[in-house]
Amino acid sequence: MKGVYMAENLRALDSLFYPRGIVVFGSVKHGKIAHQILTQLVSGSFRGVLCAVNPKGESPAEFPQVTGYAGVNEVEDEVDLAVICAPASFVLQVLDDCGHKKIPTAVIITSGFSEAGNRQGEKKLLECARRHGIRLVGPNCAGIMNTSSHFFASIEIHALPGRTAFVTQSGAIGGAVLSMAKLRGIGFSKFASYGNRVDIGENELLSYLAQDLDTDVIGLYVESLQNGRTFIEAAGEAVSRKPLIIIKSGRSSSGLRAASSHTGSLAGSDRVFDSMIRQVGALRVEGIEEMLDLCYGFTRLPQLKGNRIAIVTNSGGPGILTADRVEELAMDVKETDQAVKDKLHGFLPEHCAFSNPIDLTVEGSGKNYQRTLEIMLKHNYDGAIAINVATPFLDSRSLAEGIAAAASSQEKPLAAVFMAGEIVKEGIRALNESRIAHFPTGERAAYVFSKLHKYYTRRQIPASNGQVQRKTLPLKPPVLEPEAVSFLESEGLHFPEHAFVSSSEKILSFTDEIGFPMVMKVVSPQILHKSDVGGVILNIKNEQELDSAFEEIKTKFASYDFQGAMLYRQIEAPLEIIIGVKQDPDFGPVILVGAGGVYTELLEDISLRIAPLDKSQALEMISVLKIQKILAGFRGSAVLDSDALAELMASLSRLALTYPALKELDFNPVFVFEKGCLIGDTRILI
Amino acid sequence: MKGVYMAENLRALDSLFYPRGIVVFGSVKHGKIAHQILTQLVSGSFRGVLCAVNPKGESPAEFPQVTGYAGVNEVEDEVDLAVICAPASFVLQVLDDCGHKKIPTAVIITSGFSEAGNRQGEKKLLECARRHGIRLVGPNCAGIMNTSSHFFASIEIHALPGRTAFVTQSGAIGGAVLSMAKLRGIGFSKFASYGNRVDIGENELLSYLAQDLDTDVIGLYVESLQNGRTFIEAAGEAVSRKPLIIIKSGRSSSGLRAASSHTGSLAGSDRVFDSMIRQVGALRVEGIEEMLDLCYGFTRLPQLKGNRIAIVTNSGGPGILTADRVEELAMDVKETDQAVKDKLHGFLPEHCAFSNPIDLTVEGSGKNYQRTLEIMLKHNYDGAIAINVATPFLDSRSLAEGIAAAASSQEKPLAAVFMAGEIVKEGIRALNESRIAHFPTGERAAYVFSKLHKYYTRRQIPASNGQVQRKTLPLKPPVLEPEAVSFLESEGLHFPEHAFVSSSEKILSFTDEIGFPMVMKVVSPQILHKSDVGGVILNIKNEQELDSAFEEIKTKFASYDFQGAMLYRQIEAPLEIIIGVKQDPDFGPVILVGAGGVYTELLEDISLRIAPLDKSQALEMISVLKIQKILAGFRGSAVLDSDALAELMASLSRLALTYPALKELDFNPVFVFEKGCLIGDTRILI
Repeated sequence: MKGVYMAENLRALDSLFYPRGIVVFGSVKHGKIAHQILTQLVSGSFRGVLCAVNPKGESPAEFPQVTGYAGVNEVEDEVDLAVICAPASFVLQVLDDCGHKKIPTAVIITSGFSEAGNRQGEKKLLECARRHGIRLVGPNCAGIMNTSSHFFASIEIHALPGRTAFVTQSGAIGGAVLSMAKLRGIGFSKFASYGNRVDIGENELLSYLAQDLDTDVIGLYVESLQNGRTFIEAAGEAVSRKPLIIIKSGRSSSGLRAASSHTGSLAGSDRVFDSMIRQVGALRVEGIEEMLDLCYGFTRLPQLKGNRIAIVTNSGGPGILTADRVEELAMDVKETDQAVKDKLHGFLPEHCAFSNPIDLTVEGSGKNYQRTLEIMLKHNYDGAIAINVATPFLDSRSLAEGIAAAASSQEKPLAAVFMAGEIVKEGIRALNESRIAHFPTGERAAYVFSKLHKYYTRRQIPASNGQVQRKTLPLKPPVLEPEAVSFLESEGLHFPEHAFVSSSEKILSFTDEIGFPMVMKVVSPQILHKSDVGGVILNIKNEQELDSAFEEIKTKFASYDFQGAMLYRQIEAPLEIIIGVKQDPDFGPVILVGAGGVYTELLEDISLRIAPLDKSQALEMISVLKIQKILAGFRGSAVLDSDALAELMASLSRLALTYPALKELDFNPVFVFEKGCLIGDTRILI
Repeated sequence: MKGVYMAENLRALDSLFYPRGIVVFGSVKHGKIAHQILTQLVSGSFRGVLCAVNPKGESPAEFPQVTGYAGVNEVEDEVDLAVICAPASFVLQVLDDCGHKKIPTAVIITSGFSEAGNRQGEKKLLECARRHGIRLVGPNCAGIMNTSSHFFASIEIHALPGRTAFVTQSGAIGGAVLSMAKLRGIGFSKFASYGNRVDIGENELLSYLAQDLDTDVIGLYVESLQNGRTFIEAAGEAVSRKPLIIIKSGRSSSGLRAASSHTGSLAGSDRVFDSMIRQVGALRVEGIEEMLDLCYGFTRLPQLKGNRIAIVTNSGGPGILTADRVEELAMDVKETDQAVKDKLHGFLPEHCAFSNPIDLTVEGSGKNYQRTLEIMLKHNYDGAIAINVATPFLDSRSLAEGIAAAASSQEKPLAAVFMAGEIVKEGIRALNESRIAHFPTGERAAYVFSKLHKYYTRRQIPASNGQVQRKTLPLKPPVLEPEAVSFLESEGLHFPEHAFVSSSEKILSFTDEIGFPMVMKVVSPQILHKSDVGGVILNIKNEQELDSAFEEIKTKFASYDFQGAMLYRQIEAPLEIIIGVKQDPDFGPVILVGAGGVYTELLEDISLRIAPLDKSQALEMISVLKIQKILAGFRGSAVLDSDALAELMASLSRLALTYPALKELDFNPVFVFEKGCLIGDTRILI
């Protein structure tokens, strides 16, 4: 689906978010959905034309600004958005009427389509919309809002105005987000619930909101994706302009299955999704509370350029809890250096603690918060968290004012934590007046800082190198080992010395070429997991053992379709790795690298990335593995050839993109040496 | 410190929490701490005698119920608690005066003692208190509360009445907990901030509160422990009666260091603390919000007897997010079985989702919530989460009433999630009226359920088997390998065939006894880490190689204090494990078991437990390791002898308790076979 960025689509979304006139279809009786939508539109002070269309041409008496019509053809005003709440069986007709009226965009609130098994009805809606050139949101959605134009075409509560856009597949999650946000005073620029996503979905909405000047942060809730590859583009484009925060549910059902392709799939699809999110630089959160903390933090805090966090507090305990979390989230509660300490000693009383976290004690004044924070942030701290744990006898407002003064005097993020409730109400009010970000606990401030850091230090996504020429795979299923090895060698990949033997007569002719010790593996289209059935013989040390090994295998698998055996020189390597690629239904080829052998399943020490993959990205994947320490030369042992491994991974990516027929391709193990690496075994599924 | 359970101590804590009369020492001028304490006592409606003692004998005019005295000797009423807010330099004199007045208990709010470096002053307070038989809380604390007797001797806000007791080392954390709890309507039975803990600390408070009939749950914040072994007893006793929820800060500074004793300590002390908490069956949380969720949940919810959780919702998204979290927390979102489905089909509309989570859709009525929940809980679900995501047009109260009816009709825990804010206010009110536990998100309800499950299914702690007879260790530092091996063999432990050789002449006499291949290790008091300096030679295959190996080592380490070499038969084992024991300053001997060899550091796959350790506890420790899968027979390989390993671990525990001089004792690797295990290398520090 190309063209998500096209001007025409942007125009369609303009009429979705900035309609001049709206027609609401459906019964306007009290309690009916059309009535709820009109209630929200009117109470939200929508300034454009509002029409209600229903068989009786009624409009609610309490809304004089709404004109009722019996048919949309009677409407003479300029309307560019239809909000359809008519019963499911009437929606197709209503949509057709909208088409004749040349209404460009429709939001279908009505449910009873694919979510209830009625796929056919939904398909007809799309056909009708395409015929008329109408763009659709829904069906089975909670509607659209744009706070900047006082536009609330939704059954949910009015969003407060703000600079976060929220896009959601689930209307209920949308409603919960709006309600929980309102409790915390968090506002929104735009809101879109797209429900069954027959037409417009997350991809176009992300592209649109990426360019929306009223939106600083985008929040997204998804259960499934419209198109994985397009999502990568749309999300990547959004992330290049503003933070994108994602809740993806269904983690448990898809599960985190072990990565061995011998036992099942390469990895659970949630793991692939998770890799994709990291790959595009978006931020994944698990629930609504974390999402709101981040939306709030990103809209209120400036850029965090490093990971050194100063903590200034008036009490020890909460300072320590905050420091714990900051460090656990891979940031640095950097010790105060002597220059800073000297400055602090210039004005702080001796009973303060001068090691980060700085404890001003309960006597800490607003002025001392301000000076301390300014000194820390002017020195080498990248951000600061200021904690005030109040007693009922403490003037929180003056502390808030000191903190606000420190925030306004420089460009680094400074968050406040005022604990808690009634006794800090005046302080919180002062923080809000100065638009200082504040959080209920230091731990939550630390969490937000860690995500700021992650977002602002993300790697730029290099231009896609996925434009390879596709080719037909010169193999047919089932792919036997000799064919797989020949094919991969023709693609420039390397195996230990090897040969295929089909009869015992020729077998000794290979001994010089391969050398002892050898490994022998049975070749049969009926045997997929050779070791499991005893089809692999190790440690063949001489010609005599070689002869008898072949006889053993030949006899053992006589009843299978026995075709011969592969001989390999037996390799001892300092490290064995698994790498593989598998076609994911959403994202296409996904590359895996991980600890090989028995540790693949045992440790789940794997890393995934969606193709294309270049060498530097492969090195990045390797760098997050635990066994990376072995590659880097663990405890005095030799440094291994990560470069060669990364090149092999990039080749795997290239192969998967060149030959789309490759469904799964594993190298397990890959032997990694101080110089180079070799493929120990391979399996191809097509 | 025995005797924490003695009746005398309980009496002292009775006068702490149930004083009949109170004397507050210190200036009662507005803004001074004594004035703040009196304000809180009076506004809290304390019914006993209230006296203020200060040089001028003043009492605040606004508090007619407080009588002022110039000296405590003038007080004629019965007073059994002194609250001391006088300046630090006067506290000792005040305490002495209290002694002469025979006041049994004092809370010292005043700071400026050990926390400010004044250890001497603190010591004198304790001496004075001991002399007079006064029991002390503080100094440098925030005070004491008992809501049942309207007693608030604290600078913090009044706690709401409730059934959670909170004990805290940090006064500020105490204040933050009270304030955040009040925001959520969570109440407390008792509150104690013990500050510098010169006398009464967490151990006695836990013992007291374990028996307090007004307390159902105990929350505790600690930064350090008074006495680790006593804590284990006091916490274990508390846990046997009610849930104990602990925040321990300082996780980051102590760190989670890798477990290899070659690179440093056996494990970071936070890891030991964490093991201890699991061992006693307490629940550790990271922050105040989690603590409040648990205190609330444990006081409002009945016992959770299994891990099968039903989820009933009126919207898909939040149901899925909740299911994700329930499964991630190792509970079971068990699929609805056919019998239950049949029952539900009897009254629910067809468009509902009948697979757990059950989605009643936005049309779900209170009656249908009730019937669905009742059916699920009567069948094989152990608990339920009922989610209502409202729109402004939904009547939340009727849903709450349906849920409350289901909760009252049976004995299993049922939590509600009403999302969110203003639109569910009436529903929340109804839930509170029926004392139904409710949480802001399904994820938080899931978290609470997981801890309920953990608490109610914890293993009973077996009676201590730590009463071994202590002995003097027959070794002197530094302990060389030959001595260590002999000592351990005399204690009944097993090594591969081995011998110590000091000169090349005798070396060949051992070959028959040991057998090839062999390993040779240098013996020198100057060499601790033999492999790091090339002091280990592997794969010695015959007499000739043995000779030359010894010559090599002898030459290489000529400049060290070379004493000879240990010879071992070289072992190939299916698994190598590290086990060790180390004296922890808080808890005494701590046993470690983990993946051996290179994987010890790489994977941090370790498990800790405080001694004493019997075989069944050792098996439990092994069961949480990742490499447990290998012991259990991974992918068709042989099952290894976990029993022998567990017995070796129990021996290690016994050794550490018998010989307190053993500072560190490691076996790394331990070779584990299908039958038995052998110690491959050992290191003793004394």
